[in-house]
Amino acid sequence: MSQETFSAFASKHKQLLEKELRDRVNQLTAPSVIKESMLYSLEAGGKRIRPLLLFATLSAFGENTRKGLQTAAAIEMIHTYSLIHDDLPSMDNDDLRRGKPTNHKVFGDAFAILAGDALLTYSFQLLAETPDDLADASTKLALIKELSKASGAEGMVGGQVADISGEEKDLSLSDLEYIHIHKTGKLLECSVVSGAILAGATEEQIKILAKFAYHLGLAFQIRDDILDLEGIEEKIGKRVGSDEINHKVTYPSLLTLEGAKEALHQHIELAKHQLNAAGLNVELLEAITNLIETRDH
Amino acid sequence: MSQETFSAFASKHKQLLEKELRDRVNQLTAPSVIKESMLYSLEAGGKRIRPLLLFATLSAFGENTRKGLQTAAAIEMIHTYSLIHDDLPSMDNDDLRRGKPTNHKVFGDAFAILAGDALLTYSFQLLAETPDDLADASTKLALIKELSKASGAEGMVGGQVADISGEEKDLSLSDLEYIHIHKTGKLLECSVVSGAILAGATEEQIKILAKFAYHLGLAFQIRDDILDLEGIEEKIGKRVGSDEINHKVTYPSLLTLEGAKEALHQHIELAKHQLNAAGLNVELLEAITNLIETRDH
Repeated sequence: MSQETFSAFASKHKQLLEKELRDRVNQLTAPSVIKESMLYSLEAGGKRIRPLLLFATLSAFGENTRKGLQTAAAIEMIHTYSLIHDDLPSMDNDDLRRGKPTNHKVFGDAFAILAGDALLTYSFQLLAETPDDLADASTKLALIKELSKASGAEGMVGGQVADISGEEKDLSLSDLEYIHIHKTGKLLECSVVSGAILAGATEEQIKILAKFAYHLGLAFQIRDDILDLEGIEEKIGKRVGSDEINHKVTYPSLLTLEGAKEALHQHIELAKHQLNAAGLNVELLEAITNLIETRDH
Repeated sequence: MSQETFSAFASKHKQLLEKELRDRVNQLTAPSVIKESMLYSLEAGGKRIRPLLLFATLSAFGENTRKGLQTAAAIEMIHTYSLIHDDLPSMDNDDLRRGKPTNHKVFGDAFAILAGDALLTYSFQLLAETPDDLADASTKLALIKELSKASGAEGMVGGQVADISGEEKDLSLSDLEYIHIHKTGKLLECSVVSGAILAGATEEQIKILAKFAYHLGLAFQIRDDILDLEGIEEKIGKRVGSDEINHKVTYPSLLTLEGAKEALHQHIELAKHQLNAAGLNVELLEAITNLIETRDH
């Protein structure tokens, strides 16, 4: 697939998603400050990698990507709530995200916590309220199970807990992988699996795609660590070398920079191997995989 | 119904619920500190009024109350997460709840926020994973819709936002009612309506029971305000008169103490009027209503 074709797909679907996020929050009957706080972080931009993975998976099954719009919005709300809570003073204490003041810097800690809570809650409402012509009842329940497991104590929240517990400690490679698989990987995997569920995939297809997403998630994180050493500050939006300054254990710190690049390449190859085994039209998913290997921000 | 019969019902069902809460958290594969933080607040006691309302509603339809155990646990998890987040320094900044240190005092702010997030997320997983012999797919989706609406921006979170926005302001009676209907009332209503949904109630029955719960929720809050003026400190677990010291707008401050007592009585009567119109075996729901009118803690 040409770079142009993928860019057109990504830009069209980001627009669709961002309209869906806006419309869903605007239709809430709630105090205006909470809606503003939710929208502020939903509209802060970002690569929208989770929604794009979901749309690309639907496309791999030959399904209309609009079928996944509401589910993609729900997953992006979960991702956004996690960023709002992670940035809080008692967590990572970040003042800036993607060059903009973080939510609590604008709305205060209380409304930031509550906006996160509201987004988390609303994501499950959106899945439960998916129109019947897009998903039957058992499909909706399968989506809710996937998203709750991926984002709760056994998934993303568990990864964040392990990350905080591991600060300033000597982590092994397997400690580091536990953190990344849970904190980032589970929700990426959920995006792919949710697309497959919506497309009516078989158990076998879901298993293969979950393995693909597992390797993609680790590759994503290794690339992040490499960018922290080699990236261009204006593109990644934070100081290059900040992990080293913060004494953060990373793939390069455990494996050397060369070793990290080798690990990245291996996970990308394993991800592509799964894609080829899926027997689907995987061009868009392959383009996302290539993007994750080479991204500069 | 005799006081003894109701006490036996309440004590038996509190035990069942508390075992369910423990079992559900213990079965999670997650870092132990997050499970400890979740359990600490789930096991902090309390009246368990929401689960009891759900069980009493099932009983009103002649249904086995065990049918509602998982749903009751989900609702109690939502209530518990809201207490953990409300107690945080950036929200109400409370050090004690029911005589015990609040969650963040024991586990720190970060793990308190994450335990709240994990409980909120897990509650939807529990509803989605309700065994098929207790609820069919459309029933489970109806429960998820109810709980997400009752607890999100249009419900409990919206009420908390309005409460914080209204601090130190001159609130009208309708401002005060907005706060209480959303912050407390919606989840109480959800408890009753969820019991009715599980029992296969008609739309008409659900409407009547929701009206019952609406008045019960307001009565609950008015009684709270009265107790703050007239209660015995050891029983209510906080300083008598703390609302006045904190310049909080309450029913007595807007209506006088006598007026608040009159309003309490009116809402109790309206709640009972709905119960009588329901054509169900409402003895347990009536006993809870009487308890809310006369409770001393």
